Amino acid sequence: MPNPTAAMLVIGDEILSGRTRDANMHFLAGALTEAGIDLREVRVIGDTPQAIQDAVRALGAAHDHLFTSGGIGPTHDDITADNVAAAFGRAIGVREDARAVLQAHYDRAGIELNEARLRMARIPEGAELIDNPVSAAPGFRLENVYVMAGVPQIFEAMVASVLPTLTGGAPLISRSLTVERGEGDIAAPLADLAARHPALSIGSYPFQRHGAFGVNVVIRGQDAAEVDAAMGELAGMVG
Amino acid sequence: MPNPTAAMLVIGDEILSGRTRDANMHFLAGALTEAGIDLREVRVIGDTPQAIQDAVRALGAAHDHLFTSGGIGPTHDDITADNVAAAFGRAIGVREDARAVLQAHYDRAGIELNEARLRMARIPEGAELIDNPVSAAPGFRLENVYVMAGVPQIFEAMVASVLPTLTGGAPLISRSLTVERGEGDIAAPLADLAARHPALSIGSYPFQRHGAFGVNVVIRGQDAAEVDAAMGELAGMVG
Repeated sequence: MPNPTAAMLVIGDEILSGRTRDANMHFLAGALTEAGIDLREVRVIGDTPQAIQDAVRALGAAHDHLFTSGGIGPTHDDITADNVAAAFGRAIGVREDARAVLQAHYDRAGIELNEARLRMARIPEGAELIDNPVSAAPGFRLENVYVMAGVPQIFEAMVASVLPTLTGGAPLISRSLTVERGEGDIAAPLADLAARHPALSIGSYPFQRHGAFGVNVVIRGQDAAEVDAAMGELAGMVG
Repeated sequence: MPNPTAAMLVIGDEILSGRTRDANMHFLAGALTEAGIDLREVRVIGDTPQAIQDAVRALGAAHDHLFTSGGIGPTHDDITADNVAAAFGRAIGVREDARAVLQAHYDRAGIELNEARLRMARIPEGAELIDNPVSAAPGFRLENVYVMAGVPQIFEAMVASVLPTLTGGAPLISRSLTVERGEGDIAAPLADLAARHPALSIGSYPFQRHGAFGVNVVIRGQDAAEVDAAMGELAGMVG
């Protein structure tokens, strides 16, 4: 059975302006690969209602799962929840269970649950809350879209609570070999190897270190025995 | 006059599998902002012909400039040039000026320009070469699409040679203020400030440091005087 597919949508002007370097894409990519879910596409867009709605519709329809990051805080530029709701034609408003989670959190901290913070309890109709063990304000799942925070510590905690609920396919086995030669020297044998193993993904990643060229060759696949066999052939060809 | 707009397409299975953490998006975002070009969207896709062609067509048509990163090396999984050519319905083959650049480079290094390396001289019809001062193999511009290497050192060098040829709008001025309060405490004054200055982009980026919450507020705009005025109002409201 083929693995489930996924896409990710990173939302935030601060990424596109270069102010902030996104960390969530790399984290999610690794976590999904381990879980046997194929991440097929990531889009990064700004805090723009139409861009969010268009991307949620397109990526949600094209993949089994869509994960979003960013734009669910208390300020005026946090517009993800409203636009995910709009993408599905759902109503959105403050929900009592989300308000209760926030109320308990801020009561413990002795902080007022003011109108801005209450924005974080706005949840689209029919959505399921995603637990936030760091700062209480929940994410949510609406259909196959998982809406999560942009702050990496919170994003990672939300992913940890969501992933076990998804049915993953076979995890991808990955083996790598560092070859101290130019990429062009091993391109022909690599192409032969790839042709002999169409079920495997064979990638080559050149580097330059202390003035010398080298290549990290990575062989990935779901069948560990075939990955190991191909790695043996590779070592024989370039070793 | 509004700034020119841009999109970026990052191509490579290794990014989506989590093996490699992309660095080029963050670099390009900063460089474009400095040059007064608005980066509106980034897509990350795998080494898949149809995905590359679809994304090149969609993003190239929607923006003034499209920058791609990755997939122009000598190996079988380097398929970017062929699929950018296909997206524009152009022929592609080894071009003599590109071959001459590679031949000179490998002659100097005493390395054979073999068939695999010669793949890097395949350039779509009508394209203009982009200089690669690091490892010779050129990138290219075809219409409004700039095709560049994935290795960060080479990508950055190619961006440096491309950027001066583009007409940028006014560079974005950016000022920031760190506020040692919870984001929810300043959300209402921030929304007021944003409403009073529709020409500015006002973002708030929460952090947690040594157990205390704080917010970096960033005000961006093309008019330095208005940015400074808004920053003064902000300091008065939350200081």
